[in-house]
Amino acid sequence: MSSRADPSTAQLLEAPCRTVMRGSTSPMEDAAAERRKATFDSEELAAFLAEGKDNLLRREELVKLLSSQPWGDKTHRYFLTREQEYVCGLEAMVGMWKIMREQRMSMEDGIAMRSLAYFPGGLELHIGMFIPTILSQGTPEQQAKWMPLSNRLQVIGTYAQTELGHGTFVRGLQTVAVYDESARQFVVHSPCLESTKWWPGGLGKTATHVVLMARLFVKGRDYGPHAFVVQIRDLDTHLPLPGVTVGDIGPKMGYNSVDNGFLSFDHVRVPREAMLMRFAQVTEEGRYVPPPPDNQKASYATMVYVRATIVRDSGDFLSRAVTIATRYTAVRRQTASKLGEPEVQVLDYDNVQQTLLPLMARAYSFVFMGRSMMHMYNSFDAARARNDFVALPELHALSSGLKALCTDVTAAGIETCRRQCGGHGYLLASGLPTLFNSYVQNCTWEGDNSVMYLQTARYLIKSAMAAQAGKPLTGSAQYLSAASQQAGARCGVSSPADWCSPAHQLAALTRVAAQLVAQAAQVLARAGGGRLSFDGEAWNSSTVDLIRAARAHASLYLHQNFVDCVEAAAEQRELGDTTAAVLRQLVQLHGVSLLMEVAGDLQEGGYCTGRQAGMLREQQRALVYALRPNALALVDAFAYPDYQLNSALGRKDGNVYQALLDSARINPLNATPEGPAYKPVLQALLNPEVRSRM
Amino acid sequence: MSSRADPSTAQLLEAPCRTVMRGSTSPMEDAAAERRKATFDSEELAAFLAEGKDNLLRREELVKLLSSQPWGDKTHRYFLTREQEYVCGLEAMVGMWKIMREQRMSMEDGIAMRSLAYFPGGLELHIGMFIPTILSQGTPEQQAKWMPLSNRLQVIGTYAQTELGHGTFVRGLQTVAVYDESARQFVVHSPCLESTKWWPGGLGKTATHVVLMARLFVKGRDYGPHAFVVQIRDLDTHLPLPGVTVGDIGPKMGYNSVDNGFLSFDHVRVPREAMLMRFAQVTEEGRYVPPPPDNQKASYATMVYVRATIVRDSGDFLSRAVTIATRYTAVRRQTASKLGEPEVQVLDYDNVQQTLLPLMARAYSFVFMGRSMMHMYNSFDAARARNDFVALPELHALSSGLKALCTDVTAAGIETCRRQCGGHGYLLASGLPTLFNSYVQNCTWEGDNSVMYLQTARYLIKSAMAAQAGKPLTGSAQYLSAASQQAGARCGVSSPADWCSPAHQLAALTRVAAQLVAQAAQVLARAGGGRLSFDGEAWNSSTVDLIRAARAHASLYLHQNFVDCVEAAAEQRELGDTTAAVLRQLVQLHGVSLLMEVAGDLQEGGYCTGRQAGMLREQQRALVYALRPNALALVDAFAYPDYQLNSALGRKDGNVYQALLDSARINPLNATPEGPAYKPVLQALLNPEVRSRM
Repeated sequence: MSSRADPSTAQLLEAPCRTVMRGSTSPMEDAAAERRKATFDSEELAAFLAEGKDNLLRREELVKLLSSQPWGDKTHRYFLTREQEYVCGLEAMVGMWKIMREQRMSMEDGIAMRSLAYFPGGLELHIGMFIPTILSQGTPEQQAKWMPLSNRLQVIGTYAQTELGHGTFVRGLQTVAVYDESARQFVVHSPCLESTKWWPGGLGKTATHVVLMARLFVKGRDYGPHAFVVQIRDLDTHLPLPGVTVGDIGPKMGYNSVDNGFLSFDHVRVPREAMLMRFAQVTEEGRYVPPPPDNQKASYATMVYVRATIVRDSGDFLSRAVTIATRYTAVRRQTASKLGEPEVQVLDYDNVQQTLLPLMARAYSFVFMGRSMMHMYNSFDAARARNDFVALPELHALSSGLKALCTDVTAAGIETCRRQCGGHGYLLASGLPTLFNSYVQNCTWEGDNSVMYLQTARYLIKSAMAAQAGKPLTGSAQYLSAASQQAGARCGVSSPADWCSPAHQLAALTRVAAQLVAQAAQVLARAGGGRLSFDGEAWNSSTVDLIRAARAHASLYLHQNFVDCVEAAAEQRELGDTTAAVLRQLVQLHGVSLLMEVAGDLQEGGYCTGRQAGMLREQQRALVYALRPNALALVDAFAYPDYQLNSALGRKDGNVYQALLDSARINPLNATPEGPAYKPVLQALLNPEVRSRM
Repeated sequence: MSSRADPSTAQLLEAPCRTVMRGSTSPMEDAAAERRKATFDSEELAAFLAEGKDNLLRREELVKLLSSQPWGDKTHRYFLTREQEYVCGLEAMVGMWKIMREQRMSMEDGIAMRSLAYFPGGLELHIGMFIPTILSQGTPEQQAKWMPLSNRLQVIGTYAQTELGHGTFVRGLQTVAVYDESARQFVVHSPCLESTKWWPGGLGKTATHVVLMARLFVKGRDYGPHAFVVQIRDLDTHLPLPGVTVGDIGPKMGYNSVDNGFLSFDHVRVPREAMLMRFAQVTEEGRYVPPPPDNQKASYATMVYVRATIVRDSGDFLSRAVTIATRYTAVRRQTASKLGEPEVQVLDYDNVQQTLLPLMARAYSFVFMGRSMMHMYNSFDAARARNDFVALPELHALSSGLKALCTDVTAAGIETCRRQCGGHGYLLASGLPTLFNSYVQNCTWEGDNSVMYLQTARYLIKSAMAAQAGKPLTGSAQYLSAASQQAGARCGVSSPADWCSPAHQLAALTRVAAQLVAQAAQVLARAGGGRLSFDGEAWNSSTVDLIRAARAHASLYLHQNFVDCVEAAAEQRELGDTTAAVLRQLVQLHGVSLLMEVAGDLQEGGYCTGRQAGMLREQQRALVYALRPNALALVDAFAYPDYQLNSALGRKDGNVYQALLDSARINPLNATPEGPAYKPVLQALLNPEVRSRM
C-alpha cells in the first residue's frame, strides 16, 4: 500500500501499527513450516497414488494445455451467469473433445482433462450415454450410421429415460412408441404431463437427437421400455422439430453449465430403423423378436460400471475438499491466550483435527476402494467376454452399497470441510460451495442412495437365508454363514492401543454387520408375518433396518479393502517404510472412526463393554495426534494442481488472504465504483435534492 | 395438449395410452386424501402456533400487499443473475422499509414481511446493527444526528468488525484509530492486508457509513476495540472517499442479494465526534475515560438477543423444509409391486417417514424453544432495566449452546429434506437448495458453532467445579449438583412403550449430559496436568469432549422445554384434546429420536442395557406409524403461504408436476428456441456447410 500519510501522521501511527502487528504471522511461512514437520516423502506417495510419476508429469502438461485455452481460464469461473455457464461449459467440452481427437489422446488423458478443467457441459451424456448405448445396443448398420456423425459432433445426443413423474421404476415409464405396421413407423407420444421426459443432460438446448426409452407397443401388446434414436431438432436451424416440445428445466443447486432438459412428443412418427435392434427387434410386418435372456445381465453390467466410477470419483472429490480445508486450517490462526502472541493454528484445535483427519482417512480409503472396484469390474468384463456372469450378483450388490456409502460420506464430508474453513468457506472463491453443490447430486442420480442400499440389503438377506438353509456362501457376505458366526464371541480389546489391530477392527466390524443383517431379517420377517418377502408392504416397512445392515456391510468391505491394499503395497515394496508407516496409521484411524459410529450397536449386541467402547475415543485421539505432523504432506500427496482446485483457501503456497482479495477485486459487482444499484435505487434516497426534482 | 394426430393415428394410440395410464394417480387428489386422514384440526393448531388467528389473517394481508409490489413478485426469483439479485434485493428491502414507515406498521409486521418476502438486501446491517449500535452506544447528540438520517435512508450504514485475518478473536483486530490531539481527530488506518475489513453486509456497494470497530490508541496506549461512525462514500456521487478502498467480496454459496464487502483505510482522518461515546470517551485533550464496569455485560446481552433470534429462526427454516418435503413425498409415487397398480407414496416408505417425522418433531421443538428463548430474553431485559444481571450467565450459556444445536440440526435437516425429494429436490424451483445455501451460514456467523458449544461447555465445567466444591447450583445445570447425581441409577424402561414417558426420557437425557460433562472434565484435567484451565493448550486439546457435553446439555434443555410447553398449553386448554394428543406424540418422538443418537453413551455409562437401547428403535417406529396419518396436517399447521415457500414441490394443493413445468417454461435459457450456444458454439459443428464457409 502506497501511503497518503504526511510525515507527522506517519510518525503518529508508527507505534500503534507496530503494536497491532505484534504476533502477526505469515501464512506462507506457516505452510512451509508445516511441510517441514512431515516424517515421510509426500512426492513418493503422490507418485504411488497417481500410479506412476509419469502420470504426475502428464497432469502438469495437461494443466498447461488447458490453462492456455480461452475456455480453460478459470479466473472468472465463479462469476458466470447461468447463460454464460452453459455456453462456456459447452465450449470447454467441445474444446476438449477436439483436442483429444486432434492429438489422438488416450481415454486416460481425456478423463484427466475433464477432472482438471472440472467444467461439465452439454456433451456429458452425448459422450457418456448416447454413444455407449448406440455401441452396445445398435446393430452394425446403426453404428455405422451414427458413430461417425457422433464423433464429429455433427449430431449431439443424450439419453432420455426419466420422466417428470417417473424415476426409479423404469417399467412404469409412460412415453409410448407404438408400431404402425402399415407405415413401417413408430409413433412416439407423451400421453400426459407426468410422461414428459425430465432431467437428461444436454437435452435442454444442445442435443439434436436422443436415445429415447419408451414403452414399445406392437399390435396392441406392451413389451416394456425399449431404446429408440429420435431426432428432436432441425440440423440446419437447431429449432425443435414439429410435434417436439423441448427446453431447459431450469437452474439447479449446481451443475448449471449442463442444460438438463424436458421433452415431450405429440404423435411424432419415426422410421422403424429408429429402434436400436441389436437385441430386441420389431420386424417390418410387426413381429416382436425378444432379446436373448442374458440381455438383462448386460444392462446390470453397465450399471455396475457406472457405480464403480462413482465410487472412484468419491475419493477424488472428498480428497479435494480435505486438501482445501487442511491447507487453510494449517495457516488460518484464531485466538491467542495472550494479546500480542501468535494466534493458534486452527488445525491445532482438537475438534478441527479430529474432524479433518478421520475424513482424510476416508478419502484415502475411497481412493483405494475406487481402484479396487475398477479392477473388479475389469476382471468381470474379461469373464463376461467368455459369457461368464458368475461375479455379477456380488459385484452388483457391492457396487450399489458402496456407491451409496461413498457418496453419502463424501457429500457430508465436503460440507464438513467447508465449515472447518469458517466464514471464508462460504465464499465461492474457497472452491468448496461449488464442490458441494455440484457433488451432492451423486447421492441421488444413478439410483437414489436408499434404493442403492436396498439392492445390497436384498443380497444380504438372500445370503442369510441361504446360510440358514445350510448352503455355502462365497464372496463378501461369507461372514453370514453359520460357521463364521460365533454369537457368543466377545471383543478381545483390553487397552486403547489394541483397537489399532486390523484383526480387532475387522472382527468388530464383521460382528456389527452380521448383527444388523440378523436384526433386519427379523424386522422383515415380522412385517411379513414370518415370511421374508423382497417387495411390497413388508419390505417397504423394513427399509430403515435394511439400510443400516447394508451400510454396515459396505463399511466392513471398505475397511477390509483399505487394510489389504496398504499391506499389499507395503509388502511389494511399492511404498518405503516411513510412508507405509503413515498409511498404516491412516488405516488404523479409518477403522477406529468407523467403529465409533457403531459404538451403540457394538454394545447392544453384547460384543463390547462400555469400557471397550470408550477406548475407541481415546485411541482416535492418539492416532490423530500421531498423524497431525503429516497432515499437510498427506494432502500434498493427492497432488492436486492449484489450477484444478481453483480455491483461494486451498493454494499450495498458503497465500490465502492475498488470493481472497485478488478474487474480490475482479468480481463484476465491482466493475463500477458506485455499483449497479446506485442509479436505480440509491441515488434518489441518498440525495434528497435529486429526489425532489423527480 | 392439443393433438396433431390424424384420426387413424389417434386410434392406433388409444389403447396403448390407456394401458400406460393405468395406475396413474392425481397428486392433487393424493394431497386431499392425506388431509382427510388427519385426527385433529390443523387450523386450530395453526392459530395456536401463530399466537392467535388474527396473526394468520394479517399474514394473508401482507402476502397480498407484497405480491402486488413489483419487487415482491417471486416468479423469476430463481433466475436472477448476481447483479440482479443484488439490485432487486435492495429494492425489496427499501420497498418494505418505506411501506413500514408510510403505514406506521408494527415491528411484528416488519418481521413478518421480511420472512414472507425472504429477500435479504443491502440494508440488513443498517437495520440490524448500524441503527441499534448508534442507539445503544451513541450519546444523545450522536443519536440526534444519525437517527433521522438513518430512518429516512439518507445515510445507509453497516457494522464493520471482522477482518480478512480476524474473526472470533475481537481483541486481536488490527484496524487502528489513533487519536491526534493536535487536530482533535482520529486517524483510521489498516496497517496490513489481513486487517482489511471483510464480510459486513451492505458494505460492498450500498453503505455510505460504517460503525467501525478499531483498536483505539490515545497517547500511545492501546485501549482495545472501540466503535466509530465513519463515512466511506460521497453522498453526492456514491464514490469511495479518498483513502477508502471498498468493494464487494464476491459471490457466496447463498445470500447473494446481500453485498458483503471489504474495506480498508489509508490514514483517513475523522473528527473526534466519530467515536461513539455513550460509555467510553476520549476528551478533546486526549484523556481516555473508560466505560462503566457493567458495559461488558451489556454487550453480552446483545449477543444473547441475537442468538435467541437465531434459535427462533431455526424453527422457522426447518419447518419450511419439512413442509416442502412432507407435502411432496405425500404426492410423489415411486414403484409399484405390480405394473398397472398405483405406485407407492414415497412418504409410505419406512426410511422416508422415519426421516421426516423425527425432523418434524425437531422443527416443532425449535419453534417452542425459540418462543421460550424470546420470553427469557424479555424477562432478562426487564430485570436489566433494574440493573439486575443475575440471569445473564445462564442465559448466555443456554443461548450459545442452543444456537449451535438448532442451527446444526436445521442446516443438516434442510439438506435431508431436499434429499427425500429425489432428483426434483435438486432444482431451485423446489425451494430447498436456496433454503439450504442461504441458511447454512447460520452455523458460522455470530459465533462459529464450535465456539458456541465451547461457551456452554465453559459454563458446565464451572458448574461441575462448583458442585464438587459443595456449592449449590441453580438453573439449567442443576443436575450436575452432587445431590442430583446418582451414579448407580439404572434406566427403568422395561418395554418399548415405556420410552414414551417424559420421566424416562428426561432421566436418560440428564444422565447422558451429566456423564459427558464428567468425561469432559476428566479429559480437560488430564490435559492440564490435573488442573481445569479454561484456555490455552489444555482447553484447545479437549474441545471434542467439551463440545459433546455442551450438545448433550442443550439437547436435554430443548426436550425439557418441549415437554413443558406442550403440557402447559394442554393444561391451560389452549389446545383441544385431539390436538394435544398429537403434539404429545411429537414430544415423545422427539425424546426417542434424541435418545437414539446417544444410545452408545447410554450403554457406555451402564445406564441402559443393550435390550433397552434396542427398544428405542422399536418405539420410534411405533410413534412414526402413529403420527403418519397426521403428517400433512402437522405441516399445514405451520401455515406457510405458497408465496412464502416459493416451491413447486411444496405447494399446498399438491399440483407439483404442473408447477415444475410452468417454472421451466419461463426459464430465461428458453427465451429463444435455439438457445444461447447455437450461434457461438453449435452452428459450425452441426452444419458442416457453415463450417466450410468459415
